[in-house]
Amino acid sequence: MADISKELVSDLWKTAHALADAARAAILPHFRATGLDAENKLAGGFDPVTVADRAAEVAMRDILAAQRPQDGILGEELGTTTGTSGLTWVLDPIDGTRGFLSGTPTWGVLIAVSDESGPVLGIIDQPYIGERFCGGPGLAEVTGPLGTRPLASRAPRPLDQAIMFSTFPEVGSAEERAGFERVRDAVRLTRYGMDCYGYALVAAGQVDLVIEAGLYPYDVQGPIAVIEAAGGIVTDWQGNPVHMGGRVIAAANAEIHAEALALLNA
Amino acid sequence: MADISKELVSDLWKTAHALADAARAAILPHFRATGLDAENKLAGGFDPVTVADRAAEVAMRDILAAQRPQDGILGEELGTTTGTSGLTWVLDPIDGTRGFLSGTPTWGVLIAVSDESGPVLGIIDQPYIGERFCGGPGLAEVTGPLGTRPLASRAPRPLDQAIMFSTFPEVGSAEERAGFERVRDAVRLTRYGMDCYGYALVAAGQVDLVIEAGLYPYDVQGPIAVIEAAGGIVTDWQGNPVHMGGRVIAAANAEIHAEALALLNA
Repeated sequence: MADISKELVSDLWKTAHALADAARAAILPHFRATGLDAENKLAGGFDPVTVADRAAEVAMRDILAAQRPQDGILGEELGTTTGTSGLTWVLDPIDGTRGFLSGTPTWGVLIAVSDESGPVLGIIDQPYIGERFCGGPGLAEVTGPLGTRPLASRAPRPLDQAIMFSTFPEVGSAEERAGFERVRDAVRLTRYGMDCYGYALVAAGQVDLVIEAGLYPYDVQGPIAVIEAAGGIVTDWQGNPVHMGGRVIAAANAEIHAEALALLNA
Repeated sequence: MADISKELVSDLWKTAHALADAARAAILPHFRATGLDAENKLAGGFDPVTVADRAAEVAMRDILAAQRPQDGILGEELGTTTGTSGLTWVLDPIDGTRGFLSGTPTWGVLIAVSDESGPVLGIIDQPYIGERFCGGPGLAEVTGPLGTRPLASRAPRPLDQAIMFSTFPEVGSAEERAGFERVRDAVRLTRYGMDCYGYALVAAGQVDLVIEAGLYPYDVQGPIAVIEAAGGIVTDWQGNPVHMGGRVIAAANAEIHAEALALLNA
């Protein structure tokens, strides 16, 4: 991350919270509503896009047009808008649309603002719970049902004591899945189905690892900002920066990150 | 369910809510607390029992001793207490202890009061979200972040449009898993990791099926009461009553229940 002034960070947080608030307001009336239907974005697949998803991205883009017109935008639903500031807002209005359509409380709004080297700050917001995980320069905290608390990822522990999350057991290609399963067989507990909430739990010091494949920039930039601010580490499966997406490993600390990487690439 | 007076139902609800409130108060201080450790109930397995689990059951038993001393108790942690009324409170202070230890918001407090034929009324409570799903004679509703709303399970839809939940993909024995996988291959979407929250989502009209194996009475009696009050159906894999536990299928309606049963037993 390039040098960035306190004033700019403060301004970016103001906008980030406004985006998250607007997304909550746009999405919640549709959550668990009767008759909600998903379109089918991918022929032959099941990639639901709901009215809520698009309404939230439109609401966020309206705020950016008013507050930060100089910044670029990369949104899951409505594509790319070029900016002039060198900063880009990376938006996933509903990460985990399958979970959203099933009524689970584990989907989230993902917001990051990035420069050329990756996320400067970011938010994972869960509107139904009313829970917001924030990470950026000098700040790592969650506000939710138990008030506002600092976020800090877990200290190292042996892999056979670790908890890992992934969204579903069918991770990536056959080769990718073999790597994932080597880690799964080494940890104490593997759980599925948490969507982006798994990344929030790494930042909150509750779990040790999230491993996934096939992610897009908007799936991962909010989580990177929150987890790195909380002391964790997020890379691709080779240990390189992953803010452009791909195969992602989020780890509570460098030690367990290294252990899991070795198994992924064994 | 035997004939039961309105006055008794009202009295049972009063006690049921008092139990759920007490469990919330006992559990929440431990949720996502630093240093929470699990004992190992099962040698060779990972069946964590936390301080919170036991504290909540003790708190609920104290209330029952004061308000309903004539009723029996079957609790996950502290066993069986015989009563004289013909009614038994069936308590799982934290269903989904693995989820609880991972910080997820999908564990729950399960409460039912039953006669010899099964649950009379029941609660699925999620303390962190502050969400309570209730079902009994003439009542099916959820109170939570969006206020109080009626619960109604989904109308029939083709199996290839259905959503199914199970706690983890490793369902039961090899034979049981083969049955589960036949249903998994026939539905539109299968998701994991929701613990008891999956049953709440059947009652809330969000998903069509939950299929699991190896459950205990305290795992299933609260869900049975809530789902049946919302119009759904919960049986074993042969279509028989399942309040004593075992292999469970919870379905949004009789049609999809029959279709899934046929696949489970194909």
